[in-house]
Amino acid sequence: MHDDPEIRAALERLLAGSVQCETPAHLAGKLVRAREQGRPLTIKAGFDPTAPDLHLGHTVVLNKMRTFQDMGHRVVFVVGDFTALIGDPTGRNEARKPLSPERIAEHAETYTAQVFKVLDPARTVVRFNSEWLRPLGAEGLIRLAAKYTVSRMLERDDFKKRFADQAPISVHEFLYTLLQAYDSVSLDADVELGGSDQLFNLLVGRTIQRDYGQEPQVVLTMPLLEGTDAKRVDGVLVGAKMSKSLGNYVGVNEPPNEQFLKLMAISDDLMWRYFQLLSRRPPDEVARLQADCRSHAVNPRDVKESLAFELVARFHGEPAAAEARDAANRWLRERTVVALDEVEVQAPAEGVAVPNAIRDLGWAEGTGEVRRRMAEGAVRIDGERVTEPRHMLLPGHAYEIHYGRKKAAKVRVVAG
Amino acid sequence: MHDDPEIRAALERLLAGSVQCETPAHLAGKLVRAREQGRPLTIKAGFDPTAPDLHLGHTVVLNKMRTFQDMGHRVVFVVGDFTALIGDPTGRNEARKPLSPERIAEHAETYTAQVFKVLDPARTVVRFNSEWLRPLGAEGLIRLAAKYTVSRMLERDDFKKRFADQAPISVHEFLYTLLQAYDSVSLDADVELGGSDQLFNLLVGRTIQRDYGQEPQVVLTMPLLEGTDAKRVDGVLVGAKMSKSLGNYVGVNEPPNEQFLKLMAISDDLMWRYFQLLSRRPPDEVARLQADCRSHAVNPRDVKESLAFELVARFHGEPAAAEARDAANRWLRERTVVALDEVEVQAPAEGVAVPNAIRDLGWAEGTGEVRRRMAEGAVRIDGERVTEPRHMLLPGHAYEIHYGRKKAAKVRVVAG
Repeated sequence: MHDDPEIRAALERLLAGSVQCETPAHLAGKLVRAREQGRPLTIKAGFDPTAPDLHLGHTVVLNKMRTFQDMGHRVVFVVGDFTALIGDPTGRNEARKPLSPERIAEHAETYTAQVFKVLDPARTVVRFNSEWLRPLGAEGLIRLAAKYTVSRMLERDDFKKRFADQAPISVHEFLYTLLQAYDSVSLDADVELGGSDQLFNLLVGRTIQRDYGQEPQVVLTMPLLEGTDAKRVDGVLVGAKMSKSLGNYVGVNEPPNEQFLKLMAISDDLMWRYFQLLSRRPPDEVARLQADCRSHAVNPRDVKESLAFELVARFHGEPAAAEARDAANRWLRERTVVALDEVEVQAPAEGVAVPNAIRDLGWAEGTGEVRRRMAEGAVRIDGERVTEPRHMLLPGHAYEIHYGRKKAAKVRVVAG
Repeated sequence: MHDDPEIRAALERLLAGSVQCETPAHLAGKLVRAREQGRPLTIKAGFDPTAPDLHLGHTVVLNKMRTFQDMGHRVVFVVGDFTALIGDPTGRNEARKPLSPERIAEHAETYTAQVFKVLDPARTVVRFNSEWLRPLGAEGLIRLAAKYTVSRMLERDDFKKRFADQAPISVHEFLYTLLQAYDSVSLDADVELGGSDQLFNLLVGRTIQRDYGQEPQVVLTMPLLEGTDAKRVDGVLVGAKMSKSLGNYVGVNEPPNEQFLKLMAISDDLMWRYFQLLSRRPPDEVARLQADCRSHAVNPRDVKESLAFELVARFHGEPAAAEARDAANRWLRERTVVALDEVEVQAPAEGVAVPNAIRDLGWAEGTGEVRRRMAEGAVRIDGERVTEPRHMLLPGHAYEIHYGRKKAAKVRVVAG
């Protein structure tokens, strides 16, 4: 990538986990210059103050910013108060009702309090874009609008789709895109970070900066984090992106215990994804953990616990994380399931072995799989862990059976 | 059209010569209300101060405004200084370089001086749109832009065409359309007049007024006046619209003599068009003149002279118009053509009769036509009017021959 080993290493660290970088060579050039001139880069990120509650999904970009900060660069957080003051003038968008300045200030404070659990406050500046957008005036906005064509605007995925579907696009939506691009001009941003859904907007920033005679910013996008319910299907991690409305989120401000339990409940595949995008452990350490899990040298459950600990400690400190860990373990051990489904399994007079019963319940494809998991401790019957595959369930009895963390039922064994 | 005879008559007069009215019923309603409330209507017209030189083409709309004024209504002239101060920020449009405020004021003065040769100053107000557009700010402009969709904007003919041709349309061009619509809101305009090429913009004004809770303006468009070189082809008047760059114009500020000569040179068909759109004579008088010309009761040339007199008098006063008329007649009689083409005509030894020579030159289809026009005085040979069709041209001689005002040559007669 680059012939200077220090720059190459920095680049590798900065690009790790990213979706798109426009362009790595340009970023390398900026890093070299920053080092030569002893001048930190300005990393821009925008924040829409309509929804100040952050969840882990938002912290993916913040983590990357933190990486820039750890290398000595400066993050500028742009609070989009100007457009929030206007809202969506068409009134179509409920989420974009105009906000009062007081409300925006409140949101910004809530927001930065959360942000500073990931970012280094000493290398972070918070700015409000009304500072430079209000003085633009109608004249400045017209000049700005002259710098971009309608056709190029319609290349943005959602505009393109709505235009093709004849769904209305108001002219002011083009202006919002241009205004956030102008934020980059005002800050003379070197790098803008965002989610991969922001790619178009970030690239407009590049164009507009060039038009204002600035060196364009490097655009770096990060993936949208899958929600806590993502699973591997056909070898691929599948799941909706984390969002509050889908309920598959871990909120930055949630209490430690809830965070811990939610994180302990994610699938193993998702766990590695979260390691990549959320953990601060070096990639080689994560790779080693992964290998150890594959070779059964360590239990994935323990690895998951260490990830949960790292993240909860980030938001609430280590003592609170330790307490949450203990509470979670207690809860997982002791929890009584209140309302289990009742199901029936047929058995001859001598009873049915546990692996066969679990297969008959449809919880597993075959008994071999169940035997393996029993050995790992995945089966509890009436609160007791059962590892012996020849353990028999007798007709005329009912058992509370747990299989892994996902399957559980009151099982009535009937003669048949 | 309307059951009140006074309103019906007014409507007929206002719609005469127009291309489109959106809508006549709405205009009738406004006229009725104006009469009932004794409140004159506000007639809006925009003026782009980049090109302050008016020609007859511009006065078509002004004449219609004058008709409104003659009925007691009030004209508001909007000088588009706000956008002129910005110009075309893309720099693509030479005609839209930004203008200084001093230059705009100068243009506006030049402009109104011309306008008041048609309009009644007592019923005219001149406003500069920076008055209300600058205070809009970026916020107001965003709110305005929210009121119109991209798709509807792309319905405008030139936008549609450029979009289809993948020629660039800058986003600010949409804003200019919306700003002129907002002018109508600021003035609470009852009627907006414009050339037929302005229809889309004027209709946007209606939409935006409605959005701001106002009764929408009536939109009335007038045809684009054909230039002085328009002619009848296959029964239809054909010609580019009057424009300075094509040279087919009569400028409002041109000296009386030049105006008079240019008007005397138009075709008879164009003359009737100019009567309809430029003259203030009542339609029935024009119809009578037309009938008289058809029946040869009057010479079209004399009718044309009376039209030229009316128009020149409008811009320079009657004494100047009378002087220009005399000068034009003198000039037309006495003009010597400096560089005539030399052409040859064959003739037997006894010579060729003038009608045959003119037919042979290709200036006429047949000799009957030439004889008729000779009788009217259309042929001059070496400066002398020749009306005798048996007048002979002799081989070995050269003659300067004029046939009407359009055909002239040095004709060498050769034996053949």
